[in-house]
Amino acid sequence: MATDYKTLAGQEFDRAAFESLMKRKNFYWQSFEPHGPVKGLFDYGHPLATLEAQFLTIWRDHFVRKERMQELKCAMITPYNVFKTSGHVDKFADFMCKDPKTGEILRADHLIKDVLEARLKSDKEARGEKVEEAAEDPKKKKKQAKATKGAVKLDDEVRKQYEFLLATLDDYTGDDMGELIKKHDIRSPITGNEVEPPVSVNLMFQTQIGATGKEPAFLRPETAQGQFLSFQHLLEYNDGKMPFASASIGYSFRNELSPRSGLLRVREFLMAEIEHYVDPESGKQHSGFKKVRDLKLPLLSRQTQSEGGSEPTVITIGEAVDTKLVDNETLGYFIARIAMFMDKIGVDPAKLRFRQHMQNEMAHYAADCWDCELQTSYGWVECVGCADRSAYDLSVHMKATGVPLNVRESLKEPYRVEEWQAQLDKKKAGPLFKKDASKVQAALDSLTQDIREKLSLSLEKDGKVEVEVADMEAGKVELNKDVVSIQKESRLVTTREYIPNVIEPSFGIGRILYSLMEHAYWTREGDAARSVMSFKPTVAPIKVLLVPLQKDARFAPVVESLEEQLDERGLSYDTDSSGVSIGKRYSRNDELGIPCGITVDYQSLEDGTFTLRDRDTTKQVRAKAEDILDAVEKMVRGRWTWADVQAKLPAFESKEEEAKEE
Amino acid sequence: MATDYKTLAGQEFDRAAFESLMKRKNFYWQSFEPHGPVKGLFDYGHPLATLEAQFLTIWRDHFVRKERMQELKCAMITPYNVFKTSGHVDKFADFMCKDPKTGEILRADHLIKDVLEARLKSDKEARGEKVEEAAEDPKKKKKQAKATKGAVKLDDEVRKQYEFLLATLDDYTGDDMGELIKKHDIRSPITGNEVEPPVSVNLMFQTQIGATGKEPAFLRPETAQGQFLSFQHLLEYNDGKMPFASASIGYSFRNELSPRSGLLRVREFLMAEIEHYVDPESGKQHSGFKKVRDLKLPLLSRQTQSEGGSEPTVITIGEAVDTKLVDNETLGYFIARIAMFMDKIGVDPAKLRFRQHMQNEMAHYAADCWDCELQTSYGWVECVGCADRSAYDLSVHMKATGVPLNVRESLKEPYRVEEWQAQLDKKKAGPLFKKDASKVQAALDSLTQDIREKLSLSLEKDGKVEVEVADMEAGKVELNKDVVSIQKESRLVTTREYIPNVIEPSFGIGRILYSLMEHAYWTREGDAARSVMSFKPTVAPIKVLLVPLQKDARFAPVVESLEEQLDERGLSYDTDSSGVSIGKRYSRNDELGIPCGITVDYQSLEDGTFTLRDRDTTKQVRAKAEDILDAVEKMVRGRWTWADVQAKLPAFESKEEEAKEE
Repeated sequence: MATDYKTLAGQEFDRAAFESLMKRKNFYWQSFEPHGPVKGLFDYGHPLATLEAQFLTIWRDHFVRKERMQELKCAMITPYNVFKTSGHVDKFADFMCKDPKTGEILRADHLIKDVLEARLKSDKEARGEKVEEAAEDPKKKKKQAKATKGAVKLDDEVRKQYEFLLATLDDYTGDDMGELIKKHDIRSPITGNEVEPPVSVNLMFQTQIGATGKEPAFLRPETAQGQFLSFQHLLEYNDGKMPFASASIGYSFRNELSPRSGLLRVREFLMAEIEHYVDPESGKQHSGFKKVRDLKLPLLSRQTQSEGGSEPTVITIGEAVDTKLVDNETLGYFIARIAMFMDKIGVDPAKLRFRQHMQNEMAHYAADCWDCELQTSYGWVECVGCADRSAYDLSVHMKATGVPLNVRESLKEPYRVEEWQAQLDKKKAGPLFKKDASKVQAALDSLTQDIREKLSLSLEKDGKVEVEVADMEAGKVELNKDVVSIQKESRLVTTREYIPNVIEPSFGIGRILYSLMEHAYWTREGDAARSVMSFKPTVAPIKVLLVPLQKDARFAPVVESLEEQLDERGLSYDTDSSGVSIGKRYSRNDELGIPCGITVDYQSLEDGTFTLRDRDTTKQVRAKAEDILDAVEKMVRGRWTWADVQAKLPAFESKEEEAKEE
Repeated sequence: MATDYKTLAGQEFDRAAFESLMKRKNFYWQSFEPHGPVKGLFDYGHPLATLEAQFLTIWRDHFVRKERMQELKCAMITPYNVFKTSGHVDKFADFMCKDPKTGEILRADHLIKDVLEARLKSDKEARGEKVEEAAEDPKKKKKQAKATKGAVKLDDEVRKQYEFLLATLDDYTGDDMGELIKKHDIRSPITGNEVEPPVSVNLMFQTQIGATGKEPAFLRPETAQGQFLSFQHLLEYNDGKMPFASASIGYSFRNELSPRSGLLRVREFLMAEIEHYVDPESGKQHSGFKKVRDLKLPLLSRQTQSEGGSEPTVITIGEAVDTKLVDNETLGYFIARIAMFMDKIGVDPAKLRFRQHMQNEMAHYAADCWDCELQTSYGWVECVGCADRSAYDLSVHMKATGVPLNVRESLKEPYRVEEWQAQLDKKKAGPLFKKDASKVQAALDSLTQDIREKLSLSLEKDGKVEVEVADMEAGKVELNKDVVSIQKESRLVTTREYIPNVIEPSFGIGRILYSLMEHAYWTREGDAARSVMSFKPTVAPIKVLLVPLQKDARFAPVVESLEEQLDERGLSYDTDSSGVSIGKRYSRNDELGIPCGITVDYQSLEDGTFTLRDRDTTKQVRAKAEDILDAVEKMVRGRWTWADVQAKLPAFESKEEEAKEE
């Protein structure tokens, strides 16, 4: 993997050098460092916090405003019942094994994977084969070294078994993994101890509301549930019309037991989730699809994957929907819009693909799912999930609470239906069944038309029927002819009720930002120490670098005037007036990804012109302040590229400065 | 209070009508309603979520970009040690009394206040005096009614005592309140039961990181600690230069035991906190102060309050600093910038004041504090705290972790000092004190210069000295001349180290948004049912309402073209094509605060002109699409007011539409 992965300048990606830049330039760091850093929690410094803010502005514009979604914000602290109903209390869990001697908790699938991979590696070494370095994780290497003792050759049969296990591990239940751990004598790679059998550990952070202890709660692991529970408000705001979408930007939490992979797997993270509600009858069509159908996208299908392939097919989303590779227009529309968004923020298109979920990896509620994956030095990373959640969530909450979370439409043309009605005579059933009368009626209501028809015949024939009532102690009741009537009746249907299906594009913002930073990183040819973050001017955290040529008091008022003009235009800037060479100053700010550099030199004092430098090419143009600032503003608003600037403003070559920059 | 409080049109503020609008137009609602709403947790619907996003854009621009602060984002989940060190584990608490029969938890100060106020009210009734209605809280009225049995006259002495207690309640400790509850027989106003003595209950939400149970953690109650613990990163990013500021927009949590007052007191809330780090020697000056010193502000001083007054003095911030009403320029600068921000977002200037904290109400760390308070129907509400936190937080974390959180400056002119040095002879002290040797040296290091001088005399005279070593069992040691030397030495001082003071403007965003909504609310003259939310075009959640005159297919392409042009300009809009009258459509969208209305009528089809309607005045102008959209864009960017639009574009009077709107 590591060898496939190149910077945009075609160089080997050097993770250590990249991380050193991230640290040096304060992009991010582990939280609460002085008290001992906490795994899986990170602080964002100014460059990354600002990048995130720009990202959100563009996201809101691209999705919420452009698609006229309803933005909403829901609470993070969520009462127990909500996640009990949604299934998270029971299913949002990982299997863990405890090392009984140290108390350490190990994720069962990680444990098996680490140990089997280590054995396979050691086997390869024993057979003199070349071993790929696990470049991505020095800790992993250490664990692997501990898990085996030097090069140990495996039996052919065993090797094949291990390879099969690793490929299918996702399908294993906790019990399966427990057996596997016993059978293959898998022990903690840290201590060599045997471990306890896997137990399911819920991954939600628990807390409680108030002081009474009567209100257990969780920090939400996704923003979706709050949106679903607001469905009636949303529908009302949309004047009862379907389809529509809600969108929420907010934090979610996952109590990872052993966080790995830096910013890619963290314990609190910002998400942007869209819930697009559709009528299940018409929801596969999308009115905007015609506008995107010619967009070409790299799609990695379930079938290709099941055949062992990893090369996506590049076709238009129109063709993908026509051939049923992508199930329907609505899903296709969102896949296309996600791709357009990624392009807008500057993701490297060569490092993007859409991968269809395998049947067994989908969330329990999902009907279909395509992930937008971005390639990083850690491999392909799921950054946006685009799932069809069907009517699952709305249905379970409606059932649990009795509150309608459905759509009720007046029919333009009401129609009549003939239906079997089974009705208790209330006056007689009351004294007979007392408080259970309503349970009996409910049991009747839940009978199908077929059964009602059969019962009506029995009732006619025997004068009584037997009906199962699961909620009652006896389990069933006998109903006489005078207590119940079962007959065919005609009913006018004036409304249609349905629970909408939900298409959910769900963005992991931290993962996208991290991938974007890797994509933006490269080093100047022949000088690995001069690294550059090539953020698009639209998303770059800081837009302009002001550089007075030298320490000379005459420059100060000119710089100040430029600062005021930048302020007026709402353009962020840094001024670097330090004593080092101008080339060095540009160089160290290239690491922050500042796209536009304006130099104030002696000519500026004479004729009011300035040079504007492009970060990526280091080329310059020279013009009056207003033209320079107009050009900057157009680049920042995404209307001009550097090529446009070069076409409009005269080039500037300065031997002296070129030399300094080298 | 309620009678003082008017809408911007000078009407009585009707909270019930306002809340009904908030609900009807989906501004906010209680979270998780279908599962039974949870107190103190709210969801924001599209209008309020979008208002918040606009607020944040303006806030970032006004503070972070304009003042070139470092924005950062810190983790919310915070390990125990951080808040143990900051003092929150011990002090971030309220006193609570339990009703032993029902298990209900009552806030001790609320309990005392409710009961004594009820008794005073009942006393007034008994004496035939007019009783002000507690308009703000129907529940409170109910409780008061329960707490007393009809009109009961109090002894003059007792009445005075109650009034004094209510005025000074903030000063009471838990024990004080316990005695008071016993002495005055204060019981639960809900059940009439006696309550248990007050106990301190921490208000942080507790959770744990990982599954081992070894990492207890809290949800932060403020964003500040993460910023302080990142101090070295921030200082480094600023090239070691002082002063500078960090800023963080993020959520904090407070496990309120009985949340009241709607959006004003909630359990999770968005804050924007600035930490401005200054050199304690020069930090009272601020380079930007000259730009703001002429700004006039309503300041309610500690002195006025202690004399029972509540009228702020309106003076320039320059005069306030000159006369020491506001302690220093830096504090004054931020107070002014806060006022400018409030004006920018459209807070009613007549409903804003700055109130100095009384000595006893400041947080344990604060050296001085001014609150920016906004007037609402609940009274004056603290919306921004502007505190001098001194060096408290950085000092305690540095002491607890040993990690430097201070500034180390090279002195331009190093200087020599003559100092008494007390030094153990390590070779001899080692064998003598073994592992305690370093404790003895530490004890010597902590001696003042005066004492060292005295000890040197004793040592000369007696050949030995006695030194207290608190950490050792014996408590003191005797040191002979050959083990210790105490003499005056000269030392070159080349650096200066100090822990910065911190000025902290801290914004409660939900409170500001709520106040802003109350300030924006009014009703059309003579028609209380036609309410308007007069948000400034810069902050209004939706900028434009498109209204085709009638249901006529010819309007559709024209509306679509306008929609595309609005999209291109990044202006949000709603289109109301419903069948009701145009006046009604404007009316119901006035409730969302949409500032600009564009009508598409038959003349539009002929000559391509449109009318632009101002929400507040309902006046209209008519012009070509481009001029209309330019005008809208200028209003939204805050460059034009409606008066500017009227001066530039021809007025439009339509009898027909006026009539419909009435």
